[in-house]
Formats: sequence, structure tokens, C-alpha cells
Amino acid sequence: MEKPLILVTNDDGITAPGIRNLVEFMNEIGEVIVVAPNSPQSGKGHAITINSTLSYEEVHLDGPQRDFSCSGTPVDCVKMALDKILPRRPDIVVSGINHGANSSINVIYSGTMSAAVEGGVEGLPSIGFSLLDFSWEADFTQAKEYIQRIVKKVIENPMPKGVVLNVNIPKLTKEEIKGVKICKQANAKWEESFDERINPHGKKYYWLTGYFNNMDESEDADETALANGYISIVPVKFDLTAYEYMNELNEIMKFDKTS
Amino acid sequence: MEKPLILVTNDDGITAPGIRNLVEFMNEIGEVIVVAPNSPQSGKGHAITINSTLSYEEVHLDGPQRDFSCSGTPVDCVKMALDKILPRRPDIVVSGINHGANSSINVIYSGTMSAAVEGGVEGLPSIGFSLLDFSWEADFTQAKEYIQRIVKKVIENPMPKGVVLNVNIPKLTKEEIKGVKICKQANAKWEESFDERINPHGKKYYWLTGYFNNMDESEDADETALANGYISIVPVKFDLTAYEYMNELNEIMKFDKTS
Repeated sequence: MEKPLILVTNDDGITAPGIRNLVEFMNEIGEVIVVAPNSPQSGKGHAITINSTLSYEEVHLDGPQRDFSCSGTPVDCVKMALDKILPRRPDIVVSGINHGANSSINVIYSGTMSAAVEGGVEGLPSIGFSLLDFSWEADFTQAKEYIQRIVKKVIENPMPKGVVLNVNIPKLTKEEIKGVKICKQANAKWEESFDERINPHGKKYYWLTGYFNNMDESEDADETALANGYISIVPVKFDLTAYEYMNELNEIMKFDKTS
Repeated sequence: MEKPLILVTNDDGITAPGIRNLVEFMNEIGEVIVVAPNSPQSGKGHAITINSTLSYEEVHLDGPQRDFSCSGTPVDCVKMALDKILPRRPDIVVSGINHGANSSINVIYSGTMSAAVEGGVEGLPSIGFSLLDFSWEADFTQAKEYIQRIVKKVIENPMPKGVVLNVNIPKLTKEEIKGVKICKQANAKWEESFDERINPHGKKYYWLTGYFNNMDESEDADETALANGYISIVPVKFDLTAYEYMNELNEIMKFDKTS
């Protein structure tokens, strides 16, 4: 079989240690082309660039892969890669490894996961990887074998259309990681608080901060699996329809002509 | 009953005709506070501002409502409103009216819908409204009664936690609009193409363009309802777990120790 073509992207920027580790791991599996943002794009969600222009250029970094640095968001990178850069459709899109968790509700804010979702929208097998360690010096190698195995499994076992994987890795050593668990997205949210400051001109400004509030202790929630030392894998879909609520809503939205 | 407190936001910016129309419609239903971006934020998806600061200021526009102009994304506006600006938790969050469709897959790129989703994450009834007309001079009044009725229905009939509404309005006159339809998100995607230009310094740059490819002709898809002259209402959830694929994935990801 021909070597699989692997598109690698992320949201922390093309030089982030997380993506450089992922590129190394993927070079052992297939032919790698990197198309990643030229600057950090954390928290960009599924943003795309409509009202300004985009550009990219090839850069030369260590390793056999080719690297392209793109001015846009993670989703822009995937679109640009597919339309302008890749010689053919890739066999898989992998995004990350993110510096920090994208478990539970973080999936909707995450540029890492949005790039993977965009791969899915394009009909490609796609996976986002995140490590529960925000540090720039995080050790991404502990989960190397798991990451490689997950990627190979997905290449060998085509996922249904409309599903991508959200993989989160606990901050543990190889020996401490207990294995992988298929999970649901935990019911959790960020409790915001805005840190108020005064600028030199006397005007207030704010930093968005907050703490993560996990309201879900169920066995099969990703937060639970991670807390118990497992790598969590959540199958994520982008048909957001709440099918189970359609009938009731139908009743509610029957307008009385006389009302 | 006390007048409901209505938080209004959007992604086209606080002065866009779409939001000014929505504010007018909502003033007839409750007490309105607007917290909206100070500049256009189309296509920002669920972006939040992590690596820079935020600020807001009250502005004085026509009408009895209060208006706050915020430097962030639509999602930032909702967070800021809830944590810093509103006197109490609102009874409902309404976002829009967007200049242009947010039907089918557009829900994941849309700042309008991401603001509504953020309201849902915060446990509030939330609705995003969009009109299928990109023009700044679009006529938002044709659907006024429908919009007011939908908002009232949602205030009167609490939705389940984790569900928000994505409402799209065809570009038709009041007489031509056939009614509302509860729909699923149509299976559709954008076929990208990048429009290539050369800058004055000889370097290539690109505009993201493309055409919308609807692959879903089913009766209950939002694109179908809109094409047939109905206002589409899709119940949208932000638990993205593909539950129906968890068992199969569990089988696939059982790693053979000897592999």
C-alpha cells in the first residue's frame, strides 16, 4: 500500500512543540504535509477569514515533511491545504497536539478541534489531539505510541461520514497512562470572571478568566476517564440537530392564528 | 408578570440594521439590553478572546433599551454581558438578525449562532435569527411577527437544557412566508475556492470564496423548508458526542497488546 498522506495542523502555531512532536510521530506512519497557522490561534473556535485576505509560504523545519505557514485560523489552514497546497486529498487530518485540554465543552471553543471538524466536513477522517498540560515544555512523547495507534486504527477502519475524534491525553507518564476510553462529552462549563484593570489613560479593560466547572461525574464522561488516568476519545459530530427535541418543539411552535 | 429581560447580541456589529430591527421587535416584548461587538465579527464561530484584552462602553442609540458596545467576539459579548453588565440573569438571549443565512453547516461558522450557543451553555433560553439576505438594506420587518411569536413561545415554554434554536428566514414578503417549520440541519457544505491576487510587492494572497453545495433534499432539512418559503427552526445542541458511534468505536480502539 502507498504511504498515507497525512495533513497536520494545529491552533498553537506551526512552531509550537505540540505540533512538532505530532509531526515526528506522523513521519513514522506516512507522508506528512503541515499547513498550520503562523501565529497562535487558541480559542479561535470555528472562525474563518472572510473580511481580510490570506497568504501562506513554505518554511523549512527539521524532518522529511513539508511545512507551510499560513496567515489564517486553523479552519482556514485546512481549507487552504485542501484547495491550494496538497497534491491530492489526504488520507487523514490530524490536529494538535494542543497545549492544554479540549475535553468536554472546550470542544466548541477549540481551534484544534475546529480544524479536525473542518476535515470531517470535507469528508476526511480527522482527529484532534490535546495534552492536559499548558506548558510550552510539556512532555508530548509519553503518549506517542497511543497517538500512532489511534491514527493507524482510524486509517484502517473508516469512520462514518460526519464523525471526527476528540482525543485528550492526561498529563501522566507512559507507565501511568491506563489505556484509552471511548467517552461522551462531559457536561461542564467555564464559570467566567473578568479580571478588571485600568489602562494608563484611566479606562477600564478586562482579561477573560474563569474556572472550569465539571458537573458530570458519569463513568463514561471524558473528564472522568481523564481523571482516572485514561486517554479519552470522544466521537464528535457536526450535525448539531437535537433530533430528540423536534417533536416537542413542533407542538410548541404551532401558532394559533388568532393569538 | 415582570417584563422579561432580553439580552440582544449579534455578529455584524452593534450598528448593523439587523440588530437594530431585532432590538425594535424586542422592545415590544420586554426590557432590552444590547451587548454587541463594536465591529463586524462574521465567520468568527465560537471564538473567544484569550490572548488580548476586552473593553466595553455604553453607547446611546435610539429607543428605550440600553446599548453596550464591546471590543470582543459575539461569544465574548455574551460572557461579558452575564458577568459584568446585566443587572440580573436575562430571561432569554436573542442573537441577530444576521445579514445572511446560517442554515445547515453554517451553524458551525456563525458568530450569530455561537452567541446563541454560548447563552445555552450558560443555561439560558437562546435563539439565533438570520435572514437570507446579505444586503445592508435588507428588509427585516417582513418576519417581525414570526420573530416576536417565536421569542414569546420560547419564554413561555422552557426548552430542555442544552438546546438552543437556529431560526432562518427566507427573503420573502410577509404574505409570501408560508409559516414556520421545525427542521434538521441539512447535510451541506461549502466548496471552497481561493481567489488568488498579487499584492503590489509581487507576493500572492488569497480571498476565501466558494459556493454552497446542498446535498440534502429531505423534506425536513432546513434548506428544503427555506426553499419552499418557510421559516426554518432547527433545535441545536452543543453536546457534540456521536452517541450512535460509541459502541463501534469501542471495538475499533481495542488495542491488541501484541500489535
